[in-house]
Amino acid sequence: MLTKTNRRRFTRNFASAALATVSPLPIANAKEKQHRIRKVDVLPTAVEFRSAFNIGVGKVGGEDLPGKHVFVRVETEEGQVGWGATNTIPNWSYETIEAVTATLRHHLAPLALGKTPFELNALKKEMDVTIRPAVSNGAPFAKSALEIAFLDVAGKIMKQPLHVLLGGKIQNTIDLCFAVGIAEPKVMADEVKRWPACTCFKVKVSGDTDKDLERLEAISDVRPDADIWLDANQSYQAIELGRFFTALRQFKNIRCFEQPVRSEDWLGMGRARESSPYPIAIDEGCFSSFDVARMAQLNAADLVVLKVSKSAGVTNCMKSAAVAEATGLGLLGSGLTDAGVSFMAAIHLYSTMDLLLPPELNGPQFLKHMMVEDIAMEGATVKVPDRPGLGVTVSEDRILANQLKLI
Amino acid sequence: MLTKTNRRRFTRNFASAALATVSPLPIANAKEKQHRIRKVDVLPTAVEFRSAFNIGVGKVGGEDLPGKHVFVRVETEEGQVGWGATNTIPNWSYETIEAVTATLRHHLAPLALGKTPFELNALKKEMDVTIRPAVSNGAPFAKSALEIAFLDVAGKIMKQPLHVLLGGKIQNTIDLCFAVGIAEPKVMADEVKRWPACTCFKVKVSGDTDKDLERLEAISDVRPDADIWLDANQSYQAIELGRFFTALRQFKNIRCFEQPVRSEDWLGMGRARESSPYPIAIDEGCFSSFDVARMAQLNAADLVVLKVSKSAGVTNCMKSAAVAEATGLGLLGSGLTDAGVSFMAAIHLYSTMDLLLPPELNGPQFLKHMMVEDIAMEGATVKVPDRPGLGVTVSEDRILANQLKLI
Repeated sequence: MLTKTNRRRFTRNFASAALATVSPLPIANAKEKQHRIRKVDVLPTAVEFRSAFNIGVGKVGGEDLPGKHVFVRVETEEGQVGWGATNTIPNWSYETIEAVTATLRHHLAPLALGKTPFELNALKKEMDVTIRPAVSNGAPFAKSALEIAFLDVAGKIMKQPLHVLLGGKIQNTIDLCFAVGIAEPKVMADEVKRWPACTCFKVKVSGDTDKDLERLEAISDVRPDADIWLDANQSYQAIELGRFFTALRQFKNIRCFEQPVRSEDWLGMGRARESSPYPIAIDEGCFSSFDVARMAQLNAADLVVLKVSKSAGVTNCMKSAAVAEATGLGLLGSGLTDAGVSFMAAIHLYSTMDLLLPPELNGPQFLKHMMVEDIAMEGATVKVPDRPGLGVTVSEDRILANQLKLI
Repeated sequence: MLTKTNRRRFTRNFASAALATVSPLPIANAKEKQHRIRKVDVLPTAVEFRSAFNIGVGKVGGEDLPGKHVFVRVETEEGQVGWGATNTIPNWSYETIEAVTATLRHHLAPLALGKTPFELNALKKEMDVTIRPAVSNGAPFAKSALEIAFLDVAGKIMKQPLHVLLGGKIQNTIDLCFAVGIAEPKVMADEVKRWPACTCFKVKVSGDTDKDLERLEAISDVRPDADIWLDANQSYQAIELGRFFTALRQFKNIRCFEQPVRSEDWLGMGRARESSPYPIAIDEGCFSSFDVARMAQLNAADLVVLKVSKSAGVTNCMKSAAVAEATGLGLLGSGLTDAGVSFMAAIHLYSTMDLLLPPELNGPQFLKHMMVEDIAMEGATVKVPDRPGLGVTVSEDRILANQLKLI
């Protein structure tokens, strides 16, 4: 663009007045070679459940139905290792274990190779160019796994916990909300009894009004002190909502009602909001910061449920939170029965925020093993780690022993 | 909250299935003592202009009117130093040199003392509780100076450039847009001639339609190839806009029209937008991420002009950018005749973004000295530093030699 002549003339003009403050452009620094990613392993992994977990869209897992997670291990030239992960629940959102694994291996990992973990914005931009968002947030679970791995290894190199990379925690510990899956009322009440330290339960309902009211009664009888975060996972039909809302008024401990109708139906969410006695939260219907903005404009919800995986990673989840804040929507946090790696990514993120209820991260509740060794937890309270990166030691042997053979 | 009994019971239940993954909460880590801020110096400083710069709201500076900047120097227990800064232009926004200095010294510095620079979210939260935002973004210039200092020292401790703390640059160099202040048409054309390397000029207009058209003609004659970013700085009356817009159609190089009417008048901005032949940009009328969201909903602009100082810092400016993106508003970047410290904070931030035009950061154009020693610049192109923190060496002696005595 610059010709030699005008560059020389400009430099002269400029230098005449500000010589001391400027110097010619140095040759661009070579990227710090030792920090470049040289290897990306994508590990589809079975993670066992110890009990069944059913929600409004179907089964999440059970003793005979392990979770299908994808772990991502990145390694730099000097051998520093970072981990990322995502669960896959295609009856909740479309990304299958096969799709996430292949997307990471064949399309996203090549973008990571040769980059340093400090080039996260560049990686994110290239991921969205290669695998387009398309209306909402295309293939966010796959993208989130790689983003978390970048953040983990970046933190390790900088010797800082992930929360510091996000501006620093404002919570030192995080109380969790646990989930009560759809079952017979007595079974649900028994599940609640198992967690006396938990002060807030996400109660899953099925769209069967009478049965759901029995479930809520059974749970409220056992723990009238606990907050209830009601979650239909899209299972309600509009015609049932009026009757359900009317009956719900008898419960004094319901704090909000999440995703009553199907995820695509923002207008139905808006109508539900007009008659609901409790704030309406949106989850499956809102993945990206764009979703938050336009959904807010359509008044489709009062509260936004954050999740790292659906946001395509921690830093995009922060963007959704920024838009929610600016549009007056309250923040809730949750996960997808995450094992320890993505669980801890969420813990770091939520430690930087004021959430309205304890975040629902139910991995420790349902999984036989979190696939990491050192989550500091007592009762339903997790300590926010101050060790570098995610601050967990990944059980690599256990992950390798539970590899899924994909067809 | 937890009784000993239920805590024990819970731990037992929990441990029965997940013993290997959890351990009791360790005692919270002592904050890393050596990184705590032990000293905050607030330095009101004159920064000399080499030529006059007048805009639609009045004088910004001139040979007899130095800029009134506030530099902030923070120092950790182990002697690591970070710098922040802001300009003050009360005829642009209300914060005076006296107000910024006193707010920093008496209200914000006490919040910083004893914190580590990794507790940025906590600092920001406390700043907004102590000095309330109130409708928009109360006292953002003061807050931004301290936030930049935190980021600078955090980067130095982590040995990473500021842009890495923001996810990493996606631009290695940044071409600047320079400003052409309001003057006689020939004087404005002469200013444009001084910067042949510059491909985009922010042309300031005064609200006098005929004169402004003469100005644009004079500039376009000299540099028909350069983009013009028109900026009225609130100087137009609605009654003049139709005539001005009609005449503006003759110019082929105008890219946008910034802040035609007064900052408080979003509805007037919206009406201007309906008839403007060019996209309308909002600057003085939009400080916070909340402003972006509601202004977008009122269709008051097509483009948002970012500035670190009006956003109360770099990280809040990222929130504004996230909301602008989510609401479909294009991004422009600018500053307030910043000296080197806040100039470089903006450079790091803008290096992580795709701005629609070269950012208008005119400190190097107008100031006699940037008060830092090592901005790598050639023509109108700045190299994004890869040295830790802001990546500049502050001319501390020069700052101390130019202290302003406030009444």
